Amino acid sequence: MSKSTVSNSVIRRLPRYYRFIGELEKQGVVRISSRELSERMGLTASQIRQDFNCFGGFGQQGYGYNVAELHSKIGEILGVDAHRPAILIGAGNLGRAIATHINFSKFGFELIGIFDSNPELTGKETGNLTIRNTEELESFCEANKPLAAVLCIPREAAAEAADKLISYGVKAFWNFSHYDLKIAHSDVTVENVHLGDSLMTLSYGLSSNRSDERD
Amino acid sequence: MSKSTVSNSVIRRLPRYYRFIGELEKQGVVRISSRELSERMGLTASQIRQDFNCFGGFGQQGYGYNVAELHSKIGEILGVDAHRPAILIGAGNLGRAIATHINFSKFGFELIGIFDSNPELTGKETGNLTIRNTEELESFCEANKPLAAVLCIPREAAAEAADKLISYGVKAFWNFSHYDLKIAHSDVTVENVHLGDSLMTLSYGLSSNRSDERD
Repeated sequence: MSKSTVSNSVIRRLPRYYRFIGELEKQGVVRISSRELSERMGLTASQIRQDFNCFGGFGQQGYGYNVAELHSKIGEILGVDAHRPAILIGAGNLGRAIATHINFSKFGFELIGIFDSNPELTGKETGNLTIRNTEELESFCEANKPLAAVLCIPREAAAEAADKLISYGVKAFWNFSHYDLKIAHSDVTVENVHLGDSLMTLSYGLSSNRSDERD
Repeated sequence: MSKSTVSNSVIRRLPRYYRFIGELEKQGVVRISSRELSERMGLTASQIRQDFNCFGGFGQQGYGYNVAELHSKIGEILGVDAHRPAILIGAGNLGRAIATHINFSKFGFELIGIFDSNPELTGKETGNLTIRNTEELESFCEANKPLAAVLCIPREAAAEAADKLISYGVKAFWNFSHYDLKIAHSDVTVENVHLGDSLMTLSYGLSSNRSDERD
């Protein structure tokens, strides 16, 4: 099956498989059956086999999957070792937290620049990068060709920033701004993060006395 | 249908409905049909009707849903106005970003305390709260009865912290620590946040040249 026909919900589960299987590998597990994996992940075994079949099945034998091989193959599909250059726009609390807290190189990217329009932040260190002024954005993009941008700016500022970044060659956005990028730019890859959604789900859990886990 | 029988995937979509419908309300939209809503949200109309039917259907008439009413009813189900007391553990970059960036009271909670075990942080202001030392945690919980805790500590520290918090009466965790809380505590409500999963999905999008949006 070609990648483009894989459904969103399967894609959504891939990083979670990658995480779980990486944990198993760390714990020294060598082989695992779809049934065992399903029990650990709270999915059905047939769901797992069906998901994996979208990518050729990963060669399950009668005695299960080779854990290290499975981890490396899913990682390859996700492009975790691609080290694509990325920049971060907006060095406020959230932007700085993401720049210092997220290990981009483990997840397919390399953070190579941080920008903020506030001149007071220019020159300050965040993680191991120096905050640059947004005025430098165009020349920086020309020289370094970032493929992805992390938007940590308010919604009001996001439209203009996105237009510029796309004109400078950015193809993908990790979007914390709540601005709906797809309305004006249907051709870019966007991953929206709405932490409030996650918090509301927790609130629902307390309201309904659920003790289920969602992750 | 009782709340406890509503599936996880429906619950997962509720906050997104709440957000979209809130946007429509802000834009002055008075009524909307399931078809129009489905086009904006990238779902099918029948999916939306099915989801809403889990909560009694929200009284769609031939001419659609009343937007303000729908927004307020979904908000009620999510408990967004519940103002449940919450505390945050770990005032590092991520913890401070969450404390200052997330408007807890919009999503069902009230952030009433921030704790860190590092004495150098004690007394520092974050948002409009003062960071307390973890030594104060027990007496603070006794006096203020927080229902939820945001875990912004490393995985290694999370097991001990979670045990303590549960013994102090905490029932729900917004978990950024990557520690699997449910293994030792199956009875608490947990919402895990794995920002790396989101970044890997973006990486997949670039690998496969998808321009679909996921949110």
